[in-house]
Amino acid sequence: MFSGSQDMIVQKEITLQGYKRGYHLITSLIVNALDSMPEKGILNIHVKHTSAGITLNENADPSVRYDFNTFLNDMVPEGYSGFTHTTEGSDDMPAHLKASIIGQNITVPITNHCLNLGTWQGIYFCEFRNYGGSRKLVLTIYS
Amino acid sequence: MFSGSQDMIVQKEITLQGYKRGYHLITSLIVNALDSMPEKGILNIHVKHTSAGITLNENADPSVRYDFNTFLNDMVPEGYSGFTHTTEGSDDMPAHLKASIIGQNITVPITNHCLNLGTWQGIYFCEFRNYGGSRKLVLTIYS
Amino acid sequence: MFSGSQDMIVQKEITLQGYKRGYHLITSLIVNALDSMPEKGILNIHVKHTSAGITLNENADPSVRYDFNTFLNDMVPEGYSGFTHTTEGSDDMPAHLKASIIGQNITVPITNHCLNLGTWQGIYFCEFRNYGGSRKLVLTIYS
Repeated sequence: MFSGSQDMIVQKEITLQGYKRGYHLITSLIVNALDSMPEKGILNIHVKHTSAGITLNENADPSVRYDFNTFLNDMVPEGYSGFTHTTEGSDDMPAHLKASIIGQNITVPITNHCLNLGTWQGIYFCEFRNYGGSRKLVLTIYS
Repeated sequence: MFSGSQDMIVQKEITLQGYKRGYHLITSLIVNALDSMPEKGILNIHVKHTSAGITLNENADPSVRYDFNTFLNDMVPEGYSGFTHTTEGSDDMPAHLKASIIGQNITVPITNHCLNLGTWQGIYFCEFRNYGGSRKLVLTIYS
Repeated sequence: MFSGSQDMIVQKEITLQGYKRGYHLITSLIVNALDSMPEKGILNIHVKHTSAGITLNENADPSVRYDFNTFLNDMVPEGYSGFTHTTEGSDDMPAHLKASIIGQNITVPITNHCLNLGTWQGIYFCEFRNYGGSRKLVLTIYS
């Protein structure tokens, strides 16, 4: 039932190396990982982890990413007394919760062979662990 | 590599005019913006801004949208002492955070030429700024 | 305009029966509901409700799902004094808010005829009501 359409999908897995805890602008990295984009389409970006996330936000002023870190660390605090899942470190359970609050995948439009983001929109890779190590993303383009 | 499939994608950019801060039901507006929908497919709705969002929620009782506003303003307060990104107004940094917590794009199924939403599901446009001005959305239908 | 492509889409509606309030691993249930998956593609999972959600998170230790419940019940408390939408029970308005914070649909990649999730990623069905009853999900595969 899935015959005849596989030429319209381009899929690629990439590895991010050791980002530190925080919010990192990876728009250029994503665009450079893709050889080309179709005239029209969508790009799905999927993070293959449960303590990291992906979102879109302000691409200009680094203070926005700084404040993301401060606020979300406060909103989902490491010292929360109700946590029972604590054996993997105090940063682990908050990281799981943030991953589901922020999300682990996004789907964005492609128009005229470019990501059709707003002027101020950039792609944030969100590393919620202190030492997350390398992270894998799956990029899928539909055209 | 992207040849031969562009006839299955319909893409359209629309502009929303000056919604006030809060949560606004735009299901009809979205449906009316689309000339037609395929028998089966998906619709991706992307907000091209970093201080507005889109989500699905209760389409009947306006008190739900009212309570969204009250609760989220409290959850991400303007007076939060940790914010450093403050030059664009006290409503700016909370708006960025809400945009990533609620999300800026959704992908919903199309079945029998209609959005396949639940009985009580409507599309909320979420304006997080006091004066956000006009806002652009990209609609992409795959069939 | 939508001719000639409908053979690449498989769409199915499934019903989940009476999950109790909390976070439930449904990866196997989803995979079993699909007859087959394409070599490459995406799967969109859409929850047709405004007081339930879907997300990806840790698939191994049940304590993560337990802590999700504790923390999110605390983050969006039933007793919040600002709620005006209270006629459907004290668990209703928090459920609406959680549905938009966690999200009601996800789109995940398919590679080599399998969901391309990370080793530790599972699909969580999130029941936010005390007695949510049966719940409908729409699964759409693009290939």
